[in-house]
Amino acid sequence: MKIYGDTRSGNCLKVKYVADTLAIPYEWTEIDVLSGRTRSKEFLAINPAGQIPTVDFGNGRILAQSNAIMRYLARNSALIPGDAWLAAKMDEWLFWEQYSHEPTIAVARFLRTFKNLPDSEISPQLVEKGNAALDMMEACLTRKNWFVGDQITLADIALLAYTQFAEEGGFTLEHRPHIRKWLALAKGELNI
Amino acid sequence: MKIYGDTRSGNCLKVKYVADTLAIPYEWTEIDVLSGRTRSKEFLAINPAGQIPTVDFGNGRILAQSNAIMRYLARNSALIPGDAWLAAKMDEWLFWEQYSHEPTIAVARFLRTFKNLPDSEISPQLVEKGNAALDMMEACLTRKNWFVGDQITLADIALLAYTQFAEEGGFTLEHRPHIRKWLALAKGELNI
Repeated sequence: MKIYGDTRSGNCLKVKYVADTLAIPYEWTEIDVLSGRTRSKEFLAINPAGQIPTVDFGNGRILAQSNAIMRYLARNSALIPGDAWLAAKMDEWLFWEQYSHEPTIAVARFLRTFKNLPDSEISPQLVEKGNAALDMMEACLTRKNWFVGDQITLADIALLAYTQFAEEGGFTLEHRPHIRKWLALAKGELNI
Repeated sequence: MKIYGDTRSGNCLKVKYVADTLAIPYEWTEIDVLSGRTRSKEFLAINPAGQIPTVDFGNGRILAQSNAIMRYLARNSALIPGDAWLAAKMDEWLFWEQYSHEPTIAVARFLRTFKNLPDSEISPQLVEKGNAALDMMEACLTRKNWFVGDQITLADIALLAYTQFAEEGGFTLEHRPHIRKWLALAKGELNI
């Protein structure tokens, strides 16, 4: 399979982490997300949504959306719980990540670190929502080591993707010891 | 099961449509999303994310995130394709809906219809992104009747949820005949 991705993007790294962990071979095509190439005619023909990661499985089979790609690559693996209820709880975190975590933590990082905006130009609402997302994670990890069940699942990989860069978005993990502990544990598990 | 939802919310209606279609019995608790009740101490104890829909399956089993709930309720039903590739394409639309469709179409509707903001106060960027989402749907439906495979799936239900109210958000379906045809077909299929 051919992965179109930017290695600075947490969404793209999710796909890399899952493929590496499950030893799925791939060819990586680096796409600079800042270059506008995802909006080029050539790329829109591959993925009309103009987003990366995008994976080409051959024979016209193209898949986008990081969490959908992870779910497909990890089907029948231990990264998705076999128990239907635990799989549902995993999905709950995956959708929460894309709705409440990525649009705050990743966007703040993008503005600060890639667009070089000063903190004064980052919307206080964005910062507040990002902190609320991190607080919710911290509260969950106070009670357990992994987000779902008792081993690493796609929920952890999805949330690790941008939480590992939270500080680049101006957030701090200093008073969030359970997130720090979980990050170290998950990175060890994924060998990254 | 007990569903906490607001019947004006597309996200909540998704859960209702799936439960009704699959004849899954439920008790509906109406929560006025404008009342602030989802942010009350009582509700945050049920769902710390303070969002609806939230479903209580009993024995402490609480599930949030509309698309995760749909996926759980519809497991082993024809609303999720049995084929792994088609299921992945369905997931792609589910995540796209929560990332690119709901935050534009539903938010514009909320501001216009529930907060009564005049069109001049709706961000042009929001309108542009909403139109881009509708254009992407129209392009897909030009080639086929359903978003995935040849029958209704959760992808259609997720996208129908707010597309049916697109006009309340200030969008028009007038020059989008394939969306109009699909909406009628899907509503017929769901008996709504």
